[in-house]
Amino acid sequence: MLWRDLKAWQVYGANTDVGKTIVSTVLCKALQRRAPSNGVLYLKPVSTGPLNEADDRHISRFAPGVVSKCLSQFSEPVSPHLAAKIDSVDKALTDDSTIVSKIKRQLNKQLEQGTRYALLETAGGILSPGPSGSLQADLYRPLRLPTLLIGDHKLGGIATTISAFESLHLRGYDVDSLLLFDDPQWGNFAYLQDHFAKHDVQAVALPLPPPRRKTPKDDEQAMAEYYEQCSTSPGINTLLESLNQKHFSRVSKLTSLPSHADSIIWHPFRQHGLPQNIIAIDSAYGDTFEVYNQEADPAVAASQVGTTGLNTGSSGTQAKPLTTPLFDASASWWTQGFGHGNPELSLTAAHAAGRYGHVMFGSAVHEPALDLCYNLLETLRSPRLTRVFFTDNGSTGMEVAVKMALRATSLRYGWTKNDGGRPVEILGLKGSYHGDTIGVMNASEPSVFNEAVDWYQPWGTWFDPPSVLLSKGKWHVSVPSSFLEPGSTKTWYFQHMASLFDFSSRETHAKFYRDFITKALRSLCHDQGRRFGALVMEPIIMGAGGMIFVDPLFQHTLITTIRENPSLINPKYQPSSNPDPADWSGLPLIADEVFTGLYRLGRSSSSSFLSPDPLSPTPMSVSTAPDVSVHAKLLTGGILPLALTTASNSIFNAFLSDSKTDALLHGHSYTAHPIGCSVANHALKEMERLDTSGNSDWQAYRSPWAAAPSIPDLSSSSSTANPSPSSSTVNTPYSFFSPHLLTQLSHHPLLSGLWSLGTVLALTLKSTEGTSGGYASNATASLQSRLLTTLDEKTGEGIHARVLGDVIYFMCSLTTKPDAAERLGSVLLRALDGELEDQE
Amino acid sequence: MLWRDLKAWQVYGANTDVGKTIVSTVLCKALQRRAPSNGVLYLKPVSTGPLNEADDRHISRFAPGVVSKCLSQFSEPVSPHLAAKIDSVDKALTDDSTIVSKIKRQLNKQLEQGTRYALLETAGGILSPGPSGSLQADLYRPLRLPTLLIGDHKLGGIATTISAFESLHLRGYDVDSLLLFDDPQWGNFAYLQDHFAKHDVQAVALPLPPPRRKTPKDDEQAMAEYYEQCSTSPGINTLLESLNQKHFSRVSKLTSLPSHADSIIWHPFRQHGLPQNIIAIDSAYGDTFEVYNQEADPAVAASQVGTTGLNTGSSGTQAKPLTTPLFDASASWWTQGFGHGNPELSLTAAHAAGRYGHVMFGSAVHEPALDLCYNLLETLRSPRLTRVFFTDNGSTGMEVAVKMALRATSLRYGWTKNDGGRPVEILGLKGSYHGDTIGVMNASEPSVFNEAVDWYQPWGTWFDPPSVLLSKGKWHVSVPSSFLEPGSTKTWYFQHMASLFDFSSRETHAKFYRDFITKALRSLCHDQGRRFGALVMEPIIMGAGGMIFVDPLFQHTLITTIRENPSLINPKYQPSSNPDPADWSGLPLIADEVFTGLYRLGRSSSSSFLSPDPLSPTPMSVSTAPDVSVHAKLLTGGILPLALTTASNSIFNAFLSDSKTDALLHGHSYTAHPIGCSVANHALKEMERLDTSGNSDWQAYRSPWAAAPSIPDLSSSSSTANPSPSSSTVNTPYSFFSPHLLTQLSHHPLLSGLWSLGTVLALTLKSTEGTSGGYASNATASLQSRLLTTLDEKTGEGIHARVLGDVIYFMCSLTTKPDAAERLGSVLLRALDGELEDQE
Repeated sequence: MLWRDLKAWQVYGANTDVGKTIVSTVLCKALQRRAPSNGVLYLKPVSTGPLNEADDRHISRFAPGVVSKCLSQFSEPVSPHLAAKIDSVDKALTDDSTIVSKIKRQLNKQLEQGTRYALLETAGGILSPGPSGSLQADLYRPLRLPTLLIGDHKLGGIATTISAFESLHLRGYDVDSLLLFDDPQWGNFAYLQDHFAKHDVQAVALPLPPPRRKTPKDDEQAMAEYYEQCSTSPGINTLLESLNQKHFSRVSKLTSLPSHADSIIWHPFRQHGLPQNIIAIDSAYGDTFEVYNQEADPAVAASQVGTTGLNTGSSGTQAKPLTTPLFDASASWWTQGFGHGNPELSLTAAHAAGRYGHVMFGSAVHEPALDLCYNLLETLRSPRLTRVFFTDNGSTGMEVAVKMALRATSLRYGWTKNDGGRPVEILGLKGSYHGDTIGVMNASEPSVFNEAVDWYQPWGTWFDPPSVLLSKGKWHVSVPSSFLEPGSTKTWYFQHMASLFDFSSRETHAKFYRDFITKALRSLCHDQGRRFGALVMEPIIMGAGGMIFVDPLFQHTLITTIRENPSLINPKYQPSSNPDPADWSGLPLIADEVFTGLYRLGRSSSSSFLSPDPLSPTPMSVSTAPDVSVHAKLLTGGILPLALTTASNSIFNAFLSDSKTDALLHGHSYTAHPIGCSVANHALKEMERLDTSGNSDWQAYRSPWAAAPSIPDLSSSSSTANPSPSSSTVNTPYSFFSPHLLTQLSHHPLLSGLWSLGTVLALTLKSTEGTSGGYASNATASLQSRLLTTLDEKTGEGIHARVLGDVIYFMCSLTTKPDAAERLGSVLLRALDGELEDQE
Repeated sequence: MLWRDLKAWQVYGANTDVGKTIVSTVLCKALQRRAPSNGVLYLKPVSTGPLNEADDRHISRFAPGVVSKCLSQFSEPVSPHLAAKIDSVDKALTDDSTIVSKIKRQLNKQLEQGTRYALLETAGGILSPGPSGSLQADLYRPLRLPTLLIGDHKLGGIATTISAFESLHLRGYDVDSLLLFDDPQWGNFAYLQDHFAKHDVQAVALPLPPPRRKTPKDDEQAMAEYYEQCSTSPGINTLLESLNQKHFSRVSKLTSLPSHADSIIWHPFRQHGLPQNIIAIDSAYGDTFEVYNQEADPAVAASQVGTTGLNTGSSGTQAKPLTTPLFDASASWWTQGFGHGNPELSLTAAHAAGRYGHVMFGSAVHEPALDLCYNLLETLRSPRLTRVFFTDNGSTGMEVAVKMALRATSLRYGWTKNDGGRPVEILGLKGSYHGDTIGVMNASEPSVFNEAVDWYQPWGTWFDPPSVLLSKGKWHVSVPSSFLEPGSTKTWYFQHMASLFDFSSRETHAKFYRDFITKALRSLCHDQGRRFGALVMEPIIMGAGGMIFVDPLFQHTLITTIRENPSLINPKYQPSSNPDPADWSGLPLIADEVFTGLYRLGRSSSSSFLSPDPLSPTPMSVSTAPDVSVHAKLLTGGILPLALTTASNSIFNAFLSDSKTDALLHGHSYTAHPIGCSVANHALKEMERLDTSGNSDWQAYRSPWAAAPSIPDLSSSSSTANPSPSSSTVNTPYSFFSPHLLTQLSHHPLLSGLWSLGTVLALTLKSTEGTSGGYASNATASLQSRLLTTLDEKTGEGIHARVLGDVIYFMCSLTTKPDAAERLGSVLLRALDGELEDQE
């Protein structure tokens, strides 16, 4: 949190008994000279021990005039987590987010009342448990206040002070200053001063407090003198100057981020010729961005009228923090898995950096890389995949996949570049997207996104995808017109999402698809002589191409038709009479699971939605399992880039020879970087735990879908849909958003439809009058902007959502709490209603 | 370090006075029951305080039979760094690497004498300074022994214990167990047991030691009873079992890494059809890999004869560690900048992970990203570059560069895809390499590395590069035959490397190049109608294409000829009469500095070698500065992938319009990930400091080149070379390898030539009889293998070098010490002589 007019610091101790309260008293007294009456707040959020010894009373005694408060006092002088147990207090008093909310409210209130400086003193050491048992540095992290670290002046204090700093640092805190008593016996100050200077942290020495006197009165007298002397010392005054400077520099850095960014950054996908509001992200925690609230900033508000959409509505800007929380509803471009600022991921990354840094991977191996290969294959549970290739992101992972598949096909079919035949192409779906490097751009159909690239050349054929939307309480599968006689249309309806996956009851649909595919492939491969080298698909959901939910039966049928009829692809090829069932057949199938895999859609592998019986909890069938699959994004839990391309033996073998030049000659310098591998191992283990441990959050998400895998029928119309499959034996697809919410949304007049699966919810908005849909849709832009300032009542959070044309989507991390997902739904409904009102 | 038959642990304390020695005594006594006589070693590397209170004496008293040693004893009972100062001991006694070497020797000696268990007890807390002032956890990190952490049982001890663990963890230590006294008053054990279980660390409680008795005798009696009781307790025995298990599992994991890797990993650039020795890297520190020494492993040696090239020569394998150190002479595929396992980089990465994790970058900005843009442009000091685009690696960075340049050119020249003209191509040099994604593969000339890729299609024209080699004490510039009349040859000789860069004295060479380039471009663009969209170069050194040192005058002349004569490229284009000097002219120049930039070759930007006067210390000239440049590898200091593509305003402006579809529609999910940006900011600052602070190491490297920018002439032949430029006013190119070493090498009969610049040394070997040079050169493979086992006498390190065809190269990090670079040179000379002897 940051304000222009309030400077607040959190006071952490490198250990218990290092003089936090004494130093705080010195600082309060010194600050008081700079602030108007009641201008300084001392806040002890949690205190333990007898009231008459409480730290806030010490402040009141020695720094009268300072507003001194304690939010929770527990009676036993032990660690707060024990004290809370002993006092057996109300759970609300110990809840982390309640404590944080209380502090926020208190600070904002004090600012209105004229407070200009605040010190928040923690209890014990920085990692002493708070009342709930969370480590204090984690408990207070959402505030991320600039920190004053009180060093340990005793023997061994160099070690505890530096370790304490490291624990704060890896949790994303900024330490503004180190203060400690200078005890010449141990020389800690001299050493620490040098050490902290390397981290740009100024160290300040205070004289040791006077020894305890014989009477309380003498004691008080001695302390009063000590405080008087220290709080007027030049050292403390220099420190306060420097803290003020840091505050101003922090404010100025944050508030100038948007304009500076505008002058030097070339943003991805941005048309810099058009004005654009740049969001300045100060930090992030859990599902929440903390962003610069430009229009609540008096300095900005004074000079301009609000246009940026981040105005939280109130006109009294003076008392507002400069930052505001927004729910990260794009899961930071689909990467986020375990919450921002996750200390376990930080530590895991740091451990790998400490053990290896990066080590080159040419003819070499290290433990995190090898573990990751095993962990990924175990996570995917695929009967085909046996080999793992490392690259840096989804796009490079797909480049490798394409290289693998085309080589395997050309080799088997005896195609060469100069044999006079057509070039080898890929077979895919319209609306696909596999990344922005030119090779994989060539694997997507021409569109406004790639045609402007000089070297783009479409190498493939792309089928229109039959697509799924929920509208007015029913799931619709729309068959594309290219599948039909001119002028006709075909839509299939389902009451339950699960019924889409009940392939056995959709035999007629399957036959319809199979006939269409067979005819189309005959025309392409037999009549036109087209040569295909790979079937490339994003299983079930096409992401960047527009959040399209493809009828899983169509993808299933496409795979099986080609695998069962290789002669459709190459009429001349004679398959072996007794092939290995894990051998690729017809075409290698590449599953681009970069977005769809690793539980983004609720399952470890999105290819499992295309199995012959996707509702069965049995492992993925060899008949539909991919020959190559690509994984990235969630792979690292959402902190840094890494991609894996997996392949079957039959693909791998195509590259074996005794000639180096037949090898897959692809590699990046940071291939299999240990930091990425280590966090990926951590992430995969966490996913496994969430999936199988009976984790209560995921149970909460699943149960409304599993209990009755149905959408409550709010409409009165009758339905032609199949009966709902029995819930006890099925592996029901589910969503983090409840069936009830989806039904409500599906009847909203502004939406033409929606879908939700796993952590994703995608809404298609009707075009507003006078505009067309597609990329530049006004309706989505208007809703997107409104969501920024439609605040959740409990958390005060807006929603930062992203749009793709006429689709606006919402995405949770894997650890989003059910109540947060539910609140997101409510805010969304509220915002939609607001849009509707404005239109009416 | 790891042995099969010796289990050694480092004992660290979460604070001082937590009972490290008491716990060690318990463990020593318990271990003694499992080991033969003299089977347990207690080692205190550094001890402070009076001898009669020393910890090793305590062990001798209470665990007789345990071999108890102290390596350095200082008399004052204070932190070792102060104690060493007070005792004013010999510097050798306080030197970190000397202490580490002593421990290694001691452990290996004890193993020979039958020791099976060793405990190394540190002094104070884990980050208490050692004798040199280094933090102990850093001092002992090269050993990376499995660690026993003694927790803090006192009030506040939860915090200090977890922080201590985090400090160990981020330095790459594996903590095997947490031990602490169970003081029910504070309940630390119960809390810590749960917390550490999440990190798979078992916590073990010990009863509090008996209170101090009245007489020393009673005291001793009480302690003896305590030790007897604890060391025979079931808890301790279970712990020892578990520690044994961890040891075996660690050994088994390390020793099976190569074979497991072989079965599941698809390695980059590897022909899996050929047998290949896979190096298992256990960890790395500074410039050193710690790798599994397969042939020193008795379990392996018993079953096979040595073929893997990692046998350190001795036949007495029993007493050898399972790991051996190797100098990382490829700088881990050219990435390494600041040493492996650098705690500052770990902490910096962890801080960004803690503050943000990843946050999406679409229309957003965060502080580390913005800082990085400014820092990079400041580092490059280019008069043209103003905008920064983020991607994930050099290959994707170059894809973006190509997209940028081709668009700018097509727009200015009015070329479109369907105007009937030739496709837009790039102009480059043969031997270039820009990455493995298909788009940038297309920007390199056809070769065995790309032709097998189905979608590869060469889009360009590539000139043969005039190249430089040092041979027999003289620098040769060989002009390619394609520049000459058939049958003729042309070589220019120079006494000093600096003279190559003295362009003013090479006017005739420049004219020769200019005439050739002009004629060639006329033929291509005017006669053949070829359309070029970019001039693409790796300034001065072409890396992956074969470590080719291109005559800088040729690249300089190529740039200036095109810029000064845009009509050579497009005869129809009328340039504005008064162009902005920073506007691109003729063709946009893309500098691929992924390998060559950021001080890899001794300068912040390798483009500065192509300036009109590269020996002048003035900033880069606008006349030769690139319009687009790409940076990666060293950018993050060598720990994880990140790439930046910078561009001039005139390139940026080509994408401005009011239509989104004209934007540069490129982006990756982890674009500008804060972790990468933060470590890059740290790395750039460190580079700046090394370059400008009068840093003594870099001064040591520069001075022999600057003082006399010449190669001492060991040959007696006279030279036609230019006189050496005066050293006082020049910005002399320099190398981490001394002129003296280069001269020695240049006369070696096995080498046909070599070059060195900055941190890189590249040797071209003569082909051995009966084989041809090129990719499969036997001579380089033989030398490469020998280097693994040619050990440095001081450090016992071999060299892990990489080869490219007939070139073997050596690369330092930016912080390699001059003595290490020198030792590398000596080992190299020794290995070359060994090769020569074998041939004779």
